[in-house]
Amino acid sequence: MKVGDRQYRTIWVAGDGRTVEIIDQTELPHEFVTRRLTTLEDAAAAIREMRVRGAPLIGATAAYGVCLALQDDASDRRLDTARQTLLATRPTAVNLRWALDDMAARLKPLAPAARVDAAYARAAEICDDDVAVSRAIGEHGARLIDEAWAKGGREAPVNLLTHCNAGWLATIDWGTALAAVYVAHDAGVPVHVWVNETRPRNQGAGLTAWELGRHGVPHTVIVDSAGGHLMQRGKVDLCITGTDRTTARGDVCNKIGTYLKALAAGDNGVPFYVALPHTSIDWSLDDGVAGVPIEERDPAEVTTVVGRADDGSIVAVRVTPEGSAAANFAFDVTPARLVTGLITERGVCPASREGLLSLYPERGGDAGPQMAAPGNDDKTG
Amino acid sequence: MKVGDRQYRTIWVAGDGRTVEIIDQTELPHEFVTRRLTTLEDAAAAIREMRVRGAPLIGATAAYGVCLALQDDASDRRLDTARQTLLATRPTAVNLRWALDDMAARLKPLAPAARVDAAYARAAEICDDDVAVSRAIGEHGARLIDEAWAKGGREAPVNLLTHCNAGWLATIDWGTALAAVYVAHDAGVPVHVWVNETRPRNQGAGLTAWELGRHGVPHTVIVDSAGGHLMQRGKVDLCITGTDRTTARGDVCNKIGTYLKALAAGDNGVPFYVALPHTSIDWSLDDGVAGVPIEERDPAEVTTVVGRADDGSIVAVRVTPEGSAAANFAFDVTPARLVTGLITERGVCPASREGLLSLYPERGGDAGPQMAAPGNDDKTG
Repeated sequence: MKVGDRQYRTIWVAGDGRTVEIIDQTELPHEFVTRRLTTLEDAAAAIREMRVRGAPLIGATAAYGVCLALQDDASDRRLDTARQTLLATRPTAVNLRWALDDMAARLKPLAPAARVDAAYARAAEICDDDVAVSRAIGEHGARLIDEAWAKGGREAPVNLLTHCNAGWLATIDWGTALAAVYVAHDAGVPVHVWVNETRPRNQGAGLTAWELGRHGVPHTVIVDSAGGHLMQRGKVDLCITGTDRTTARGDVCNKIGTYLKALAAGDNGVPFYVALPHTSIDWSLDDGVAGVPIEERDPAEVTTVVGRADDGSIVAVRVTPEGSAAANFAFDVTPARLVTGLITERGVCPASREGLLSLYPERGGDAGPQMAAPGNDDKTG
Repeated sequence: MKVGDRQYRTIWVAGDGRTVEIIDQTELPHEFVTRRLTTLEDAAAAIREMRVRGAPLIGATAAYGVCLALQDDASDRRLDTARQTLLATRPTAVNLRWALDDMAARLKPLAPAARVDAAYARAAEICDDDVAVSRAIGEHGARLIDEAWAKGGREAPVNLLTHCNAGWLATIDWGTALAAVYVAHDAGVPVHVWVNETRPRNQGAGLTAWELGRHGVPHTVIVDSAGGHLMQRGKVDLCITGTDRTTARGDVCNKIGTYLKALAAGDNGVPFYVALPHTSIDWSLDDGVAGVPIEERDPAEVTTVVGRADDGSIVAVRVTPEGSAAANFAFDVTPARLVTGLITERGVCPASREGLLSLYPERGGDAGPQMAAPGNDDKTG
C-alpha cells in the first residue's frame, strides 16, 4: 500500500539482494522508520520487540531470518540454530512455526552451497503467496462494499466500521479486513472508515488510522464505546473485522471488543463481516466460547497509555490510581450467529460449518471437528 | 465516603463557617487536593474548570457560590450578578439552573441582612437532601446486590460491572450506582467491581477506581471492550450504571458505551440496572433514540490521553497520527427493553412508563409525555 507517493510492503529485500528491510511498527503512528535486518539476531529481535507483528508478517520475517542466518554458514547446525532462535521469539505464533518448518523441510535436502539462494527464493514465495491471499480477500470483500454503495444509490460514501488492525501492516500487503477497503477505494468506491481506537494497545488509533491516512482513505477515529451509538443512528453501513482464530462452525475469536460491536450490529440490522485467510480457521474446534482460551496480557497495557507529548517525545502515562488492580483480556469470542458472513480468499460464505465446507470441501471428509488439523494460536494483534 | 481514615463529602463549609471547601477532581486520581472557595469567582471557576462535576454537585457548588457572593453585599443586584455569573459556567446543566432559581426565590423575599444566613442554611439543605436521595438509592440497590449474593449461596463475592462514574464524586455523598455498592460493602456483603475505564475522559479509571480504592472496595479496572467477554464467561453477576437522562418510558441516556454493555448483559442473561434520582427523569420524552440529541465533544479528548508520567508530571499524549480525524460522541441511548430495572430513591421498578408511574403516581395525570416538566439536559459526566 501507499505511504505518501511510494508503494510499500511490510518487509522486502534491500537493493543489495541480501539484507532485509522492515517498517518499524513500534514507531508508528508517530514516525515512519524503516530498519535494515542484516543478521539472524536482527530478525529475531524485530519479532521479539514487535517491530513486526501480525501472524503472516511474523512468519515471513522468520523465513528471512533463516536466509540471513545461512549467509556465512549454511550448515545443518546453523539451520537448526536459526530455527530455535526464531521459534523462541513469539512461542504461540503458529505462522512462525509453520514458516520455519517449511523452510527447514525445503532446505535440508539441498547441498549447503545451494541453500542460501533457495532460502531467499522460498521466503519471497511465502510473501507473494500471502499477498495473493490478502488481495483475493480484498476483492471478495470489496464486492460487498460495492453492493452497499449500490444499495444507497451510489451516492453517499459507504460507512464501514472496523476494530483493531487487520490491515496491510499485519500481513505483507493489503491486509484482510482492510484489503476490502483498499480494493474498493482504489476502484473508486467512496468509503469512509470508523476506526475503533482499540484499547488497550490502540492498534486502531495507531496503526489502522495511520495506514488509512497514508493511503488516502477517509476515516475517523472513535473510542471503542462509540460503535453502538453510530449503528443506532444509521451511520454504519457495514462492519468488517479480522480474526485471530475462527472455529469450524464460524465462531470468531478476535481482539477484545469485537463481540460488543457484533451485538450492536445485530441489534441494528447492520451486516457484520469477518475477513480471514484459511490459515486462521481452526477445524479442530466448534464452540469458540467454550473452547478458546483467552490470553490475559500485562495489566500495565491497561493502566498506562503510550503516546507523543507536545515536545515530541514518546511518553507512557498512567491513567489509574496507584493501588487499583487492572485486568487485560486480549480477545473475545463472537458467536457465529452474530456474524453475517466470512470473507476468505475463496469467497464469502455464511459463518457456519456448512458455509465453510462450501468453500473448503476438502475439509468435509470428517464427521466432526478434526483434531489433526493445526489450530491457529497466533495472538499477535 | 472514606478517603483513607477520614469521611468526606465532595463539598463542605470550612471551620470558619463561611468559606467552602471542595475536592479538586481535576487532580484525581493522582493527587488528593482540597481547595478553598472564598469568593463568587472561586465557585464559578471551580465549576467552569470542572474541579467539581456531576449534576448534583454542580448545583450545590452554585448554591454555595451565592452564599459567598452575598457575604459583603447582600443586595438584589449582587444576587442577580451571582446568578448570572454562575449560570454562565456550564449552561446546559439543569441542576445548576434549578439550584440558582431555588436560592433566588428563597432569598429575594428576605431583608438583605437576613440573606447570608438563610443562603448558607438553604445550601446545606440542598446538600443534605441530595445525600438522603443518594443514600435511599443505595439502600434499594444494595438489596439487589444482597439478593445476588444470596443466590450464590452467600459464598463468592458479588461481581458487579459499572461504567463511567456514578459515585459520590458526582454527587454530594454516596453517589447513585456506586451508592448501592457502598451500602452493600458497608453492610458486609462482599463485592468486587469491574470498572470500565470509560474512554475518552477515563472517569472510570480515574474517578471510580479512585473512589472505590479509597473506600476499600475491591475492584479491577478493565478497558471498555472487556465487559462482553466477562459476561460471556460468567464473571459478572449484575451491572449497575448511572444515567444522565431517563425518558418517561425508561430509555436511558448515559455515557457512551452503556448501550453496548446492556446488549452484552441481555445476550448473557446478566441483570442490567440503572440507578437514578427522580430529577434525571425527563417526563416530556418517550423515545430516547429519536428524542435525545447526543452531545459531540472536542475530538482532542479522543486523540490525546492525560495521565501521570514516570517523573510524576501530568502529561497529555497523542495516540493518533497527525491528520487523522476523530469524533467524540459523549452519550448513547440504551432502550428500555435492555434495562432490567430502574433504581430510584423510591425503590426499584421496571424500565417502563407503568414502572415509573408505580413509583411516581403523581405523574400519572397525563395521558402522554408532559411538555411542562423540566427535562434534564445535564451532560456533566
